[in-house]
Amino acid sequence: MFELERYLKERAQLVERAFSRCIDEPAGPAAPLYEAMRYSLLGGGKRLRPILVLASCEAVGGKVETALGLACALEMIHTYSLIHDDLPCMDDDDLRHGRATCHKVYGEALATLAGDALLTDAFRVVLRSSDGAPPDAVLDAVAILAEAAGSRGMVGGQVIDLANEGKKLTLEQLEDLHSKKTGALFRASILGGARLGGATPAQLDSLDRYARAVGLAFQVMDDLLDVESTTEQMGKRTQKDEAAGKNTYPSLLGLEESRGLARQLERRAHQALETFDQRAAPLRKIATFVVERRQ
Amino acid sequence: MFELERYLKERAQLVERAFSRCIDEPAGPAAPLYEAMRYSLLGGGKRLRPILVLASCEAVGGKVETALGLACALEMIHTYSLIHDDLPCMDDDDLRHGRATCHKVYGEALATLAGDALLTDAFRVVLRSSDGAPPDAVLDAVAILAEAAGSRGMVGGQVIDLANEGKKLTLEQLEDLHSKKTGALFRASILGGARLGGATPAQLDSLDRYARAVGLAFQVMDDLLDVESTTEQMGKRTQKDEAAGKNTYPSLLGLEESRGLARQLERRAHQALETFDQRAAPLRKIATFVVERRQ
Repeated sequence: MFELERYLKERAQLVERAFSRCIDEPAGPAAPLYEAMRYSLLGGGKRLRPILVLASCEAVGGKVETALGLACALEMIHTYSLIHDDLPCMDDDDLRHGRATCHKVYGEALATLAGDALLTDAFRVVLRSSDGAPPDAVLDAVAILAEAAGSRGMVGGQVIDLANEGKKLTLEQLEDLHSKKTGALFRASILGGARLGGATPAQLDSLDRYARAVGLAFQVMDDLLDVESTTEQMGKRTQKDEAAGKNTYPSLLGLEESRGLARQLERRAHQALETFDQRAAPLRKIATFVVERRQ
Repeated sequence: MFELERYLKERAQLVERAFSRCIDEPAGPAAPLYEAMRYSLLGGGKRLRPILVLASCEAVGGKVETALGLACALEMIHTYSLIHDDLPCMDDDDLRHGRATCHKVYGEALATLAGDALLTDAFRVVLRSSDGAPPDAVLDAVAILAEAAGSRGMVGGQVIDLANEGKKLTLEQLEDLHSKKTGALFRASILGGARLGGATPAQLDSLDRYARAVGLAFQVMDDLLDVESTTEQMGKRTQKDEAAGKNTYPSLLGLEESRGLARQLERRAHQALETFDQRAAPLRKIATFVVERRQ
């Protein structure tokens, strides 16, 4: 019987141990930069994106070691996006994973640069540590990552989000926003891990459907948890979406219907994996975990 | 007879035409992001880094088309670094290439995100448009680029620069700062272009020496021009290094000795190319151009 809790913990530890090889620790003059990068990268989090990279690589029969560099890169890019989103000129947040945000500790200049460095170094990490995979698979995984994180993906989503504060969106517009803002990085994790693991085109198609369902389910739950949880439970400021005039699933659909949508997306994720064997057990359990999580 | 002026103009136009394929122009909700990216990327500049990519590719017998994606990526990364350096929390500059800086026109949030997107999209552009080169050469060029732009290179250099304002550096410390802050991106341009052009290891060694000399010469001249030029000539604020308490070559060596160092670096650059044939003529002329430029 597959135990998700132990799996998540072991995989998170595997990734966190690998982080030490991703960030230099020179005693030299750039030491404050590395300290700020480490502060944010090692500051906690579910490590869901890197775990999805590894689980997806395994689901198609690949070795986790091949995808460990990409897994680290995904968390580095996720971390940079949080650092920049928390800046005073963006969401102006003081709290992240239960600790002071990067710019609160290191100032705005160093926080901006720590974000820039995590983003850039992420690409170095994948390229220098995916030795087990054929070069064209590495190229493809990195191209998917760059496309997902840039203007067509995450950064574009953040711009749309900021531009629409206080404006009422349709359900279709909200889904487009989230497919970019959070969905794109989930997709890059799952497709990139599978590509490095040697996935066939048909497997990539199925995993693409899985990724879209899980990414959206994650966001629906994020919106629900923002309404239903306290700052203490989440380790970040909650009930802030409504205050900021943000469009959310609960504000558009109500709480009950949002919960129903999350369950529907979970089923869609499971259906996408129907042709996979037991090696996809972690991916299946993660789809359920995403809609049952309490933080 | 090789005419540098015409070469620089033609190459700059080639790169600028290719930019239109690098930045999407959707009519959609992320349009302000693309507008801010285009404002800064198309806002002028010498295009020296992309031209070095192409010249280096040609010097080893490669086709310019193979390196055009990398050339665009270099200018996108250079542009992102200027947008972030100009932010109020960093150098707080209002003027760049004779125009208002990105955050002055689009606000800090969008300027930060336009920088993030240019950096990320740069990687997508190289990976999706270097079809003529073998996958391992592309991987290597992109890894060199990521290493040069990240914590070990440009971002690290910017942190060292900010940390040392008002402190007196030794000549060795100043050289280390500049080898990271500006030198690393010159090196990535020249080595990356050569790698895509099919350079041998011996050629890469020679071009590495050329790149270090030209990158440092560029910075020595930048310091000299900051002292000797007006804001009108340069299209950006000048005489600001002294006001900010920055360490510069003129402040450490004096004007005359700084000019002498630039000429010495020019000779070193020419010596590094001794084994190259006439296809390295552009690289040779660029080394001289760098120490004779007036802006």
